[in-house]
Amino acid sequence: MVNWIEVDTYAREWIKEAGERIRKTFTQKLDITTKSDKNDLVTNVDKETEQYFIEKIRSTYNDHKILGEEGYGDKPTTIDGIVWIIDPIDGTMNFVHQKRNFMISIGIYENGVGILGYIYDVVHNELFYGKKGEGVFFQGKPVPKLEEVSLEEAVLGLNPTWVTENRRIDYSILTPLVKRAHGTRSYGSAALEIAYVAMGWMDAYITLRLSPWDYAAGKILIEELGGKATTLSGKPLSMLEGSSVFISKPGLHEELLENYLKEFKE
Amino acid sequence: MVNWIEVDTYAREWIKEAGERIRKTFTQKLDITTKSDKNDLVTNVDKETEQYFIEKIRSTYNDHKILGEEGYGDKPTTIDGIVWIIDPIDGTMNFVHQKRNFMISIGIYENGVGILGYIYDVVHNELFYGKKGEGVFFQGKPVPKLEEVSLEEAVLGLNPTWVTENRRIDYSILTPLVKRAHGTRSYGSAALEIAYVAMGWMDAYITLRLSPWDYAAGKILIEELGGKATTLSGKPLSMLEGSSVFISKPGLHEELLENYLKEFKE
Repeated sequence: MVNWIEVDTYAREWIKEAGERIRKTFTQKLDITTKSDKNDLVTNVDKETEQYFIEKIRSTYNDHKILGEEGYGDKPTTIDGIVWIIDPIDGTMNFVHQKRNFMISIGIYENGVGILGYIYDVVHNELFYGKKGEGVFFQGKPVPKLEEVSLEEAVLGLNPTWVTENRRIDYSILTPLVKRAHGTRSYGSAALEIAYVAMGWMDAYITLRLSPWDYAAGKILIEELGGKATTLSGKPLSMLEGSSVFISKPGLHEELLENYLKEFKE
Repeated sequence: MVNWIEVDTYAREWIKEAGERIRKTFTQKLDITTKSDKNDLVTNVDKETEQYFIEKIRSTYNDHKILGEEGYGDKPTTIDGIVWIIDPIDGTMNFVHQKRNFMISIGIYENGVGILGYIYDVVHNELFYGKKGEGVFFQGKPVPKLEEVSLEEAVLGLNPTWVTENRRIDYSILTPLVKRAHGTRSYGSAALEIAYVAMGWMDAYITLRLSPWDYAAGKILIEELGGKATTLSGKPLSMLEGSSVFISKPGLHEELLENYLKEFKE
Protein backbone atom coordinates (compact mmCIF):
# COMPACT_ATOMS: atom_id res chain seq x y z
CA MET A 1 0.00 0.00 0.00
CA VAL A 2 1.50 3.29 -1.09
CA ASN A 3 1.56 6.12 1.45
CA TRP A 4 0.55 8.88 -0.99
CA ILE A 5 0.58 11.56 1.68
CA GLU A 6 4.25 10.81 2.30
CA VAL A 7 5.03 10.68 -1.43
CA ASP A 8 3.31 14.05 -1.87
CA THR A 9 5.23 15.58 1.04
CA TYR A 10 8.57 14.46 -0.40
CA ALA A 11 7.68 15.49 -3.96
CA ARG A 12 6.82 19.03 -2.83
CA GLU A 13 9.97 19.29 -0.74
CA TRP A 14 12.17 18.16 -3.64
CA ILE A 15 10.45 20.42 -6.16
CA LYS A 16 10.95 23.49 -3.93
CA GLU A 17 14.58 22.54 -3.34
CA ALA A 18 15.18 21.92 -7.09
CA GLY A 19 13.54 25.29 -7.88
CA GLU A 20 15.82 26.99 -5.39
CA ARG A 21 18.86 25.37 -7.05
CA ILE A 22 17.68 26.43 -10.53
CA ARG A 23 17.12 30.06 -9.41
CA LYS A 24 20.69 30.09 -8.05
CA THR A 25 22.05 29.22 -11.52
CA PHE A 26 20.61 32.44 -13.04
CA THR A 27 23.83 34.32 -12.43
CA GLN A 28 26.02 31.52 -13.84
CA LYS A 29 26.97 30.89 -17.44
CA LEU A 30 24.97 28.03 -18.98
CA ASP A 31 26.42 25.11 -20.87
CA ILE A 32 23.94 24.71 -23.76
CA THR A 33 23.82 21.88 -26.29
CA THR A 34 21.24 20.82 -28.85
CA LYS A 35 19.60 17.39 -29.01
CA SER A 36 17.50 16.09 -31.91
CA ASP A 37 17.08 19.46 -33.64
CA LYS A 38 17.83 23.17 -33.25
CA ASN A 39 14.74 23.71 -31.11
CA ASP A 40 15.59 20.91 -28.72
CA LEU A 41 18.01 22.52 -26.31
CA VAL A 42 19.47 21.03 -23.17
CA THR A 43 21.63 22.69 -20.53
CA ASN A 44 23.73 21.48 -17.64
CA VAL A 45 20.91 22.72 -15.38
CA ASP A 46 18.33 20.40 -17.00
CA LYS A 47 20.70 17.48 -16.45
CA GLU A 48 21.69 18.39 -12.90
CA THR A 49 18.06 18.93 -11.91
CA GLU A 50 17.01 15.54 -13.25
CA GLN A 51 19.94 13.90 -11.46
CA TYR A 52 18.91 15.64 -8.23
CA PHE A 53 15.39 14.18 -8.46
CA ILE A 54 16.66 10.72 -9.35
CA GLU A 55 19.02 10.64 -6.39
CA LYS A 56 16.25 11.70 -4.01
CA ILE A 57 13.68 9.25 -5.37
CA ARG A 58 16.07 6.28 -5.51
CA SER A 59 17.34 6.78 -1.98
CA THR A 60 13.78 7.08 -0.62
CA TYR A 61 11.74 4.69 -2.80
CA ASN A 62 14.00 2.06 -4.31
CA ASP A 63 11.03 0.21 -5.87
CA HIS A 64 9.75 3.27 -7.80
CA LYS A 65 10.71 3.68 -11.45
CA ILE A 66 11.71 6.96 -13.10
CA LEU A 67 11.19 8.20 -16.65
CA GLY A 68 13.08 11.46 -17.16
CA GLU A 69 13.54 13.69 -20.19
CA GLU A 70 17.31 13.70 -19.94
CA GLY A 71 17.54 9.90 -19.84
CA TYR A 72 19.15 9.41 -16.41
CA GLY A 73 16.12 7.42 -15.24
CA ASP A 74 15.12 3.83 -15.90
CA LYS A 75 13.83 3.94 -19.48
CA PRO A 76 10.90 1.74 -18.40
CA THR A 77 9.30 -0.45 -21.07
CA THR A 78 6.05 -0.83 -19.14
CA ILE A 79 4.05 1.58 -16.98
CA ASP A 80 3.52 -1.03 -14.22
CA GLY A 81 4.20 -0.11 -10.60
CA ILE A 82 4.93 3.42 -9.42
CA VAL A 83 6.54 5.57 -12.12
CA TRP A 84 7.74 9.16 -11.68
CA ILE A 85 7.63 10.94 -15.06
CA ILE A 86 9.87 13.98 -14.86
CA ASP A 87 10.71 16.98 -16.99
CA PRO A 88 13.31 18.86 -14.93
CA ILE A 89 12.93 21.99 -17.09
CA ASP A 90 9.97 22.11 -19.45
CA GLY A 91 10.56 25.01 -21.85
CA THR A 92 14.34 24.93 -21.99
CA MET A 93 14.45 27.57 -24.76
CA ASN A 94 12.55 29.92 -22.44
CA PHE A 95 14.90 29.00 -19.59
CA VAL A 96 17.87 29.95 -21.78
CA HIS A 97 16.40 33.08 -23.43
CA GLN A 98 14.06 34.42 -20.77
CA LYS A 99 14.96 32.91 -17.43
CA ARG A 100 11.19 32.58 -17.02
CA ASN A 101 8.18 30.74 -18.49
CA PHE A 102 9.69 27.30 -17.80
CA MET A 103 8.37 24.66 -15.43
CA ILE A 104 9.39 21.64 -13.40
CA SER A 105 6.85 18.98 -14.37
CA ILE A 106 6.35 15.74 -12.41
CA GLY A 107 3.57 13.20 -12.82
CA ILE A 108 3.46 10.14 -10.56
CA TYR A 109 1.60 7.14 -11.99
CA GLU A 110 0.50 3.85 -10.41
CA ASN A 111 0.02 1.05 -12.94
CA GLY A 112 -0.63 3.63 -15.63
CA VAL A 113 -3.08 5.73 -13.61
CA GLY A 114 -2.02 9.30 -12.84
CA ILE A 115 -2.17 9.92 -9.08
CA LEU A 116 -0.12 13.08 -8.35
CA GLY A 117 0.71 15.91 -10.75
CA TYR A 118 2.97 18.93 -10.14
CA ILE A 119 3.72 21.83 -12.48
CA TYR A 120 5.98 24.34 -10.78
CA ASP A 121 6.75 27.83 -12.09
CA VAL A 122 10.27 28.18 -10.77
CA VAL A 123 10.63 31.94 -11.22
CA HIS A 124 7.34 33.00 -9.71
CA ASN A 125 7.27 30.20 -7.11
CA GLU A 126 3.78 29.13 -8.19
CA LEU A 127 2.65 25.51 -7.89
CA PHE A 128 -0.13 23.90 -9.91
CA TYR A 129 -0.95 20.61 -8.16
CA GLY A 130 -3.48 17.86 -8.71
CA LYS A 131 -4.33 14.59 -6.98
CA LYS A 132 -6.63 12.03 -8.50
CA GLY A 133 -10.02 12.19 -6.83
CA GLU A 134 -9.08 15.10 -4.58
CA GLY A 135 -8.97 18.04 -6.98
CA VAL A 136 -6.54 20.58 -8.39
CA PHE A 137 -4.96 23.40 -6.43
CA PHE A 138 -3.12 26.56 -7.48
CA GLN A 139 -1.04 28.09 -4.73
CA GLY A 140 -3.01 25.91 -2.33
CA LYS A 141 -6.42 27.17 -3.46
CA PRO A 142 -8.92 24.80 -5.12
CA VAL A 143 -9.35 25.24 -8.88
CA PRO A 144 -12.95 25.00 -10.20
CA LYS A 145 -14.02 22.30 -12.66
CA LEU A 146 -13.68 23.19 -16.35
CA GLU A 147 -16.86 24.34 -18.06
CA GLU A 148 -17.90 23.89 -21.67
CA VAL A 149 -16.95 26.65 -24.09
CA SER A 150 -17.44 27.23 -27.82
CA LEU A 151 -14.62 27.88 -30.31
CA GLU A 152 -15.76 31.50 -30.79
CA GLU A 153 -15.21 32.23 -27.09
CA ALA A 154 -11.99 30.22 -26.84
CA VAL A 155 -8.37 31.27 -26.43
CA LEU A 156 -6.20 28.55 -28.00
CA GLY A 157 -2.59 27.68 -27.30
CA LEU A 158 -1.20 27.12 -30.79
CA ASN A 159 2.27 27.83 -32.15
CA PRO A 160 2.50 29.55 -35.58
CA THR A 161 4.59 26.58 -36.76
CA TRP A 162 1.47 24.42 -37.06
CA VAL A 163 -0.39 26.86 -39.33
CA THR A 164 2.57 27.24 -41.71
CA GLU A 165 4.23 24.55 -43.81
CA ASN A 166 5.65 21.86 -41.51
CA ARG A 167 6.34 18.14 -41.55
CA ARG A 168 3.76 17.09 -38.96
CA ILE A 169 0.40 18.37 -40.21
CA ASP A 170 -1.21 19.87 -43.31
CA TYR A 171 -1.46 23.50 -42.20
CA SER A 172 -4.90 23.93 -43.78
CA ILE A 173 -6.35 21.71 -41.01
CA LEU A 174 -5.54 24.17 -38.23
CA THR A 175 -5.68 27.57 -39.99
CA PRO A 176 -9.49 27.89 -39.72
CA LEU A 177 -9.15 27.67 -35.93
CA VAL A 178 -7.02 30.81 -35.86
CA LYS A 179 -9.67 32.81 -37.65
CA ARG A 180 -12.60 31.48 -35.64
CA ALA A 181 -11.16 31.37 -32.13
CA HIS A 182 -11.38 34.40 -29.86
CA GLY A 183 -7.58 34.50 -29.70
CA THR A 184 -4.39 32.44 -29.84
CA ARG A 185 -1.34 32.34 -27.60
CA SER A 186 2.00 30.53 -27.60
CA TYR A 187 4.27 30.30 -24.56
CA GLY A 188 6.88 27.70 -25.52
CA SER A 189 6.35 25.38 -22.54
CA ALA A 190 3.87 22.52 -22.84
CA ALA A 191 3.57 22.10 -19.07
CA LEU A 192 2.83 25.82 -18.69
CA GLU A 193 0.26 25.73 -21.49
CA ILE A 194 -1.49 22.66 -20.05
CA ALA A 195 -1.52 24.32 -16.61
CA TYR A 196 -3.09 27.39 -18.26
CA VAL A 197 -5.88 25.22 -19.68
CA ALA A 198 -6.39 23.65 -16.24
CA MET A 199 -6.76 27.13 -14.74
CA GLY A 200 -9.19 28.22 -17.49
CA TRP A 201 -6.60 30.83 -18.63
CA MET A 202 -6.66 29.20 -22.06
CA ASP A 203 -9.41 26.94 -23.36
CA ALA A 204 -7.37 24.44 -25.35
CA TYR A 205 -3.78 23.65 -26.31
CA ILE A 206 -2.79 21.94 -29.55
CA THR A 207 0.66 20.76 -30.50
CA LEU A 208 2.02 18.19 -32.88
CA ARG A 209 4.78 16.43 -30.99
CA LEU A 210 5.40 15.97 -27.30
CA SER A 211 6.92 13.32 -25.08
CA PRO A 212 5.32 11.78 -21.97
CA TRP A 213 7.33 13.98 -19.57
CA ASP A 214 5.85 17.08 -21.22
CA TYR A 215 2.25 16.11 -20.40
CA ALA A 216 2.41 13.48 -17.63
CA ALA A 217 1.65 15.98 -14.86
CA GLY A 218 -0.70 18.16 -16.89
CA LYS A 219 -2.90 15.23 -17.93
CA ILE A 220 -3.63 14.47 -14.26
CA LEU A 221 -4.70 18.07 -13.58
CA ILE A 222 -6.84 18.34 -16.72
CA GLU A 223 -8.70 15.06 -16.21
CA GLU A 224 -9.29 15.77 -12.53
CA LEU A 225 -11.06 18.98 -13.62
CA GLY A 226 -13.25 17.29 -16.23
CA GLY A 227 -11.13 18.34 -19.22
CA LYS A 228 -9.79 16.17 -22.02
CA ALA A 229 -6.20 15.16 -22.79
CA THR A 230 -5.78 13.13 -25.98
CA THR A 231 -3.89 13.03 -29.25
CA LEU A 232 -5.12 15.20 -32.15
CA SER A 233 -7.21 12.29 -33.36
CA GLY A 234 -8.75 11.77 -29.94
CA LYS A 235 -6.70 8.72 -28.88
CA PRO A 236 -5.43 8.29 -25.31
CA LEU A 237 -2.00 9.73 -24.52
CA SER A 238 0.69 7.12 -23.88
CA MET A 239 3.10 7.43 -20.95
CA LEU A 240 5.75 5.41 -22.79
CA GLU A 241 5.90 7.16 -26.16
CA GLY A 242 5.21 10.61 -27.57
CA SER A 243 2.48 11.82 -29.91
CA SER A 244 0.46 14.85 -30.95
CA VAL A 245 -1.39 16.43 -28.03
CA PHE A 246 -4.81 18.06 -27.77
CA ILE A 247 -5.72 19.37 -24.31
CA SER A 248 -9.12 21.00 -23.97
CA LYS A 249 -12.11 21.99 -21.97
CA PRO A 250 -15.06 19.64 -22.45
CA GLY A 251 -17.41 20.55 -25.30
CA LEU A 252 -14.68 22.33 -27.23
CA HIS A 253 -12.79 19.01 -27.42
CA GLU A 254 -15.67 17.29 -29.17
CA GLU A 255 -16.37 20.33 -31.40
CA LEU A 256 -12.77 20.49 -32.64
CA LEU A 257 -12.37 16.72 -33.10
CA GLU A 258 -15.56 16.54 -35.11
CA ASN A 259 -15.31 19.68 -37.22
CA TYR A 260 -11.60 20.35 -37.66
CA LEU A 261 -9.30 17.51 -36.64
CA LYS A 262 -10.97 14.56 -38.35
CA GLU A 263 -8.77 15.11 -41.45
CA PHE A 264 -5.64 14.59 -39.34
CA LYS A 265 -3.84 11.23 -39.62
CA GLU A 266 -1.33 10.37 -36.86
CA MET B 1 11.71 73.55 -17.09
CA VAL B 2 10.17 70.20 -16.24
CA ASN B 3 11.14 68.53 -12.97
CA TRP B 4 11.46 65.00 -14.37
CA ILE B 5 12.51 63.54 -11.03
CA GLU B 6 9.23 64.71 -9.56
CA VAL B 7 7.23 63.46 -12.56
CA ASP B 8 8.93 60.07 -12.24
CA THR B 9 8.21 59.91 -8.51
CA TYR B 10 4.51 60.61 -9.06
CA ALA B 11 4.24 58.26 -12.03
CA ARG B 12 5.64 55.35 -10.01
CA GLU B 13 3.39 56.12 -7.05
CA TRP B 14 0.29 56.24 -9.24
CA ILE B 15 1.22 53.07 -11.13
CA LYS B 16 1.70 51.12 -7.88
CA GLU B 17 -1.59 52.47 -6.52
CA ALA B 18 -3.44 51.65 -9.77
CA GLY B 19 -1.94 48.15 -9.72
CA GLU B 20 -3.15 47.66 -6.17
CA ARG B 21 -6.65 48.74 -7.21
CA ILE B 22 -6.64 46.36 -10.19
CA ARG B 23 -5.51 43.43 -8.04
CA LYS B 24 -8.39 44.12 -5.66
CA THR B 25 -10.89 43.71 -8.54
CA PHE B 26 -9.82 40.09 -9.09
CA THR B 27 -12.51 38.81 -6.77
CA GLN B 28 -15.25 41.00 -8.31
CA LYS B 29 -17.39 40.29 -11.34
CA LEU B 30 -16.22 42.20 -14.41
CA ASP B 31 -18.43 44.29 -16.65
CA ILE B 32 -17.11 43.39 -20.11
CA THR B 33 -18.06 45.04 -23.41
CA THR B 34 -16.55 44.88 -26.89
CA LYS B 35 -15.33 47.85 -28.90
CA SER B 36 -14.42 47.80 -32.60
CA ASP B 37 -14.35 44.01 -32.96
CA LYS B 38 -14.70 40.80 -30.94
CA ASN B 39 -11.03 40.90 -29.93
CA ASP B 40 -11.20 44.44 -28.65
CA LEU B 41 -12.55 44.03 -25.15
CA VAL B 42 -12.95 46.70 -22.52
CA THR B 43 -13.97 46.32 -18.89
CA ASN B 44 -15.05 48.67 -16.16
CA VAL B 45 -11.57 48.19 -14.68
CA ASP B 46 -9.84 49.54 -17.84
CA LYS B 47 -12.09 52.61 -17.65
CA GLU B 48 -11.75 53.18 -13.91
CA THR B 49 -7.97 52.81 -14.08
CA GLU B 50 -7.66 55.36 -16.88
CA GLN B 51 -9.92 57.75 -14.97
CA TYR B 52 -7.75 57.29 -11.87
CA PHE B 53 -4.61 58.31 -13.80
CA ILE B 54 -6.34 61.26 -15.45
CA GLU B 55 -7.58 62.61 -12.14
CA LYS B 56 -4.10 62.34 -10.61
CA ILE B 57 -2.32 63.91 -13.58
CA ARG B 58 -4.80 66.76 -14.02
CA SER B 59 -4.77 67.71 -10.37
CA THR B 60 -0.96 67.72 -10.28
CA TYR B 61 0.06 68.96 -13.74
CA ASN B 62 -2.76 70.97 -15.28
CA ASP B 63 -0.61 71.87 -18.33
CA HIS B 64 0.16 68.23 -19.26
CA LYS B 65 -1.94 66.53 -21.92
CA ILE B 66 -3.22 62.96 -21.77
CA LEU B 67 -3.83 60.44 -24.54
CA GLY B 68 -5.55 57.36 -23.11
CA GLU B 69 -6.87 54.20 -24.73
CA GLU B 70 -10.34 54.54 -23.24
CA GLY B 71 -10.77 58.11 -24.51
CA TYR B 72 -11.16 59.96 -21.20
CA GLY B 73 -8.05 62.03 -21.96
CA ASP B 74 -7.57 65.04 -24.22
CA LYS B 75 -7.59 63.48 -27.69
CA PRO B 76 -4.61 65.70 -28.59
CA THR B 77 -4.15 66.61 -32.26
CA THR B 78 -0.47 67.47 -31.84
CA ILE B 79 2.30 65.94 -29.74
CA ASP B 80 3.56 69.34 -28.52
CA GLY B 81 4.18 69.91 -24.82
CA ILE B 82 4.14 67.14 -22.24
CA VAL B 83 1.88 64.25 -23.20
CA TRP B 84 1.13 61.20 -21.07
CA ILE B 85 0.22 58.27 -23.33
CA ILE B 86 -1.61 55.68 -21.27
CA ASP B 87 -2.91 52.17 -21.68
CA PRO B 88 -4.52 51.39 -18.33
CA ILE B 89 -4.69 47.66 -19.12
CA ASP B 90 -2.70 46.45 -22.11
CA GLY B 91 -3.86 42.91 -22.87
CA THR B 92 -7.46 43.18 -21.75
CA MET B 93 -8.30 39.72 -23.12
CA ASN B 94 -5.59 38.29 -20.85
CA PHE B 95 -6.90 40.37 -17.96
CA VAL B 96 -10.36 38.87 -18.50
CA HIS B 97 -9.32 35.26 -19.22
CA GLN B 98 -6.15 34.87 -17.22
CA LYS B 99 -5.98 37.58 -14.59
CA ARG B 100 -2.30 37.80 -15.64
CA ASN B 101 -0.10 38.73 -18.61
CA PHE B 102 -1.51 42.25 -18.81
CA MET B 103 0.34 45.51 -18.21
CA ILE B 104 -0.15 49.13 -17.27
CA SER B 105 1.74 51.04 -19.96
CA ILE B 106 2.64 54.74 -19.68
CA GLY B 107 4.95 56.74 -21.92
CA ILE B 108 5.61 60.41 -21.15
CA TYR B 109 6.66 62.51 -24.15
CA GLU B 110 8.00 66.06 -24.41
CA ASN B 111 7.41 67.67 -27.80
CA GLY B 112 7.30 64.22 -29.39
CA VAL B 113 10.43 62.89 -27.68
CA GLY B 114 9.93 59.95 -25.30
CA ILE B 115 11.37 60.78 -21.87
CA LEU B 116 9.91 58.30 -19.35
CA GLY B 117 8.51 54.82 -20.06
CA TYR B 118 6.80 52.41 -17.66
CA ILE B 119 5.50 48.91 -18.31
CA TYR B 120 4.13 47.37 -15.13
CA ASP B 121 3.20 43.72 -14.68
CA VAL B 122 0.36 44.16 -12.22
CA VAL B 123 0.12 40.52 -11.08
CA HIS B 124 3.80 39.90 -10.48
CA ASN B 125 4.55 43.45 -9.31
CA GLU B 126 7.40 43.79 -11.81
CA LEU B 127 8.31 47.17 -13.31
CA PHE B 128 10.13 47.71 -16.60
CA TYR B 129 11.27 51.34 -16.61
CA GLY B 130 13.28 53.51 -19.00
CA LYS B 131 14.42 57.11 -19.02
CA LYS B 132 15.90 58.74 -22.09
CA GLY B 133 19.67 59.01 -21.70
CA GLU B 134 19.74 57.22 -18.36
CA GLY B 135 19.02 53.61 -19.26
CA VAL B 136 16.43 50.90 -18.70
CA PHE B 137 15.81 49.13 -15.42
CA PHE B 138 13.93 45.96 -14.52
CA GLN B 139 13.00 45.73 -10.86
CA GLY B 140 15.52 48.52 -10.28
CA LYS B 141 18.43 46.67 -11.93
CA PRO B 142 20.04 48.08 -15.10
CA VAL B 143 19.23 46.21 -18.32
CA PRO B 144 22.14 45.68 -20.76
CA LYS B 145 22.14 47.17 -24.27
CA LEU B 146 20.66 44.99 -27.00
CA GLU B 147 23.15 43.05 -29.11
CA GLU B 148 22.85 42.05 -32.75
CA VAL B 149 21.34 38.65 -33.47
CA SER B 150 20.57 36.67 -36.63
CA LEU B 151 17.13 35.31 -37.57
CA GLU B 152 18.29 31.72 -37.01
CA GLU B 153 19.07 32.49 -33.35
CA ALA B 154 16.00 34.65 -32.82
CA VAL B 155 12.82 34.09 -30.84
CA LEU B 156 10.06 36.16 -32.48
CA GLY B 157 6.85 37.48 -30.99
CA LEU B 158 4.32 36.76 -33.74
CA ASN B 159 0.66 35.83 -33.49
CA PRO B 160 -0.58 32.96 -35.70
CA THR B 161 -3.15 35.41 -37.15
CA TRP B 162 -0.46 37.07 -39.27
CA VAL B 163 0.67 33.83 -40.92
CA THR B 164 -2.86 32.79 -41.84
CA GLU B 165 -5.33 34.59 -44.11
CA ASN B 166 -6.08 38.03 -42.66
CA ARG B 167 -7.00 41.50 -43.88
CA ARG B 168 -3.75 43.26 -42.92
CA ILE B 169 -0.93 41.38 -44.65
CA ASP B 170 -0.37 38.73 -47.30
CA TYR B 171 0.49 35.79 -45.04
CA SER B 172 3.21 34.55 -47.42
CA ILE B 173 5.35 37.54 -46.34
CA LEU B 174 5.70 36.38 -42.76
CA THR B 175 5.46 32.58 -43.03
CA PRO B 176 9.16 32.11 -43.96
CA LEU B 177 10.10 33.77 -40.66
CA VAL B 178 8.33 31.04 -38.70
CA LYS B 179 10.36 28.33 -40.39
CA ARG B 180 13.70 30.14 -40.12
CA ALA B 181 13.53 31.66 -36.66
CA HIS B 182 14.69 29.71 -33.63
CA GLY B 183 11.19 29.93 -32.17
CA THR B 184 8.01 31.98 -31.99
CA ARG B 185 5.89 33.13 -29.07
CA SER B 186 2.64 35.03 -28.64
CA TYR B 187 1.51 36.55 -25.32
CA GLY B 188 -1.43 38.77 -26.27
CA SER B 189 -0.11 42.01 -24.74
CA ALA B 190 1.93 44.37 -26.93
CA ALA B 191 3.46 46.15 -23.94
CA LEU B 192 4.52 42.81 -22.45
CA GLU B 193 6.00 41.67 -25.75
CA ILE B 194 7.92 44.92 -26.27
CA ALA B 195 9.21 44.68 -22.68
CA TYR B 196 10.34 41.12 -23.47
CA VAL B 197 12.34 42.39 -26.47
CA ALA B 198 13.88 45.12 -24.26
CA MET B 199 14.96 42.43 -21.78
CA GLY B 200 16.38 40.22 -24.55
CA TRP B 201 13.75 37.57 -23.68
CA MET B 202 12.52 37.77 -27.26
CA ASP B 203 14.53 39.17 -30.17
CA ALA B 204 11.77 40.87 -32.14
CA TYR B 205 8.03 41.48 -32.07
CA ILE B 206 5.89 41.91 -35.17
CA THR B 207 2.24 42.88 -35.28
CA LEU B 208 -0.01 44.46 -37.85
CA ARG B 209 -2.08 46.97 -35.95
CA LEU B 210 -1.44 48.83 -32.74
CA SER B 211 -2.32 52.23 -31.32
CA PRO B 212 0.14 54.72 -29.76
CA TRP B 213 -0.80 53.74 -26.17
CA ASP B 214 0.24 50.14 -26.93
CA TYR B 215 3.83 51.09 -27.80
CA ALA B 216 4.44 54.59 -26.35
CA ALA B 217 6.25 53.27 -23.27
CA GLY B 218 7.93 50.34 -25.00
CA LYS B 219 9.47 52.49 -27.74
CA ILE B 220 11.31 54.53 -25.10
CA LEU B 221 12.80 51.39 -23.52
CA ILE B 222 13.75 49.80 -26.84
CA GLU B 223 15.45 52.90 -28.27
CA GLU B 224 17.30 53.59 -25.02
CA LEU B 225 18.83 50.09 -25.33
CA GLY B 226 19.88 50.51 -28.98
CA GLY B 227 16.97 48.57 -30.43
CA LYS B 228 14.60 49.61 -33.22
CA ALA B 229 10.90 50.48 -33.04
CA THR B 230 9.28 51.19 -36.43
CA THR B 231 6.39 50.17 -38.64
CA LEU B 232 6.74 46.99 -40.74
CA SER B 233 8.10 49.08 -43.59
CA GLY B 234 10.67 50.75 -41.36
CA LYS B 235 8.88 54.10 -40.91
CA PRO B 236 8.86 55.95 -37.56
CA LEU B 237 6.00 55.14 -35.19
CA SER B 238 3.50 57.97 -34.71
CA MET B 239 2.25 58.96 -31.28
CA LEU B 240 -1.00 60.30 -32.74
CA GLU B 241 -2.15 57.44 -34.92
CA GLY B 242 -1.72 53.69 -35.05
CA SER B 243 0.11 51.48 -37.55
CA SER B 244 1.86 48.15 -37.97
CA VAL B 245 4.70 47.67 -35.48
CA PHE B 246 8.12 46.03 -35.78
CA ILE B 247 10.24 46.06 -32.62
CA SER B 248 13.65 44.45 -32.85
CA LYS B 249 17.21 44.08 -31.76
CA PRO B 250 19.64 45.88 -34.06
CA GLY B 251 20.96 43.81 -36.98
CA LEU B 252 17.87 41.62 -37.05
CA HIS B 253 15.79 44.74 -37.80
CA GLU B 254 17.79 45.47 -40.96
CA GLU B 255 17.90 41.77 -41.96
CA LEU B 256 14.12 41.40 -41.75
CA LEU B 257 13.32 44.73 -43.44
CA GLU B 258 15.63 43.93 -46.33
CA ASN B 259 14.90 40.24 -46.86
CA TYR B 260 11.32 39.72 -45.73
CA LEU B 261 9.30 42.87 -45.16
CA LYS B 262 10.07 44.85 -48.31
CA GLU B 263 7.02 43.31 -50.03
CA PHE B 264 4.75 44.81 -47.36
CA LYS B 265 2.74 47.91 -48.23
CA GLU B 266 1.27 49.93 -45.34
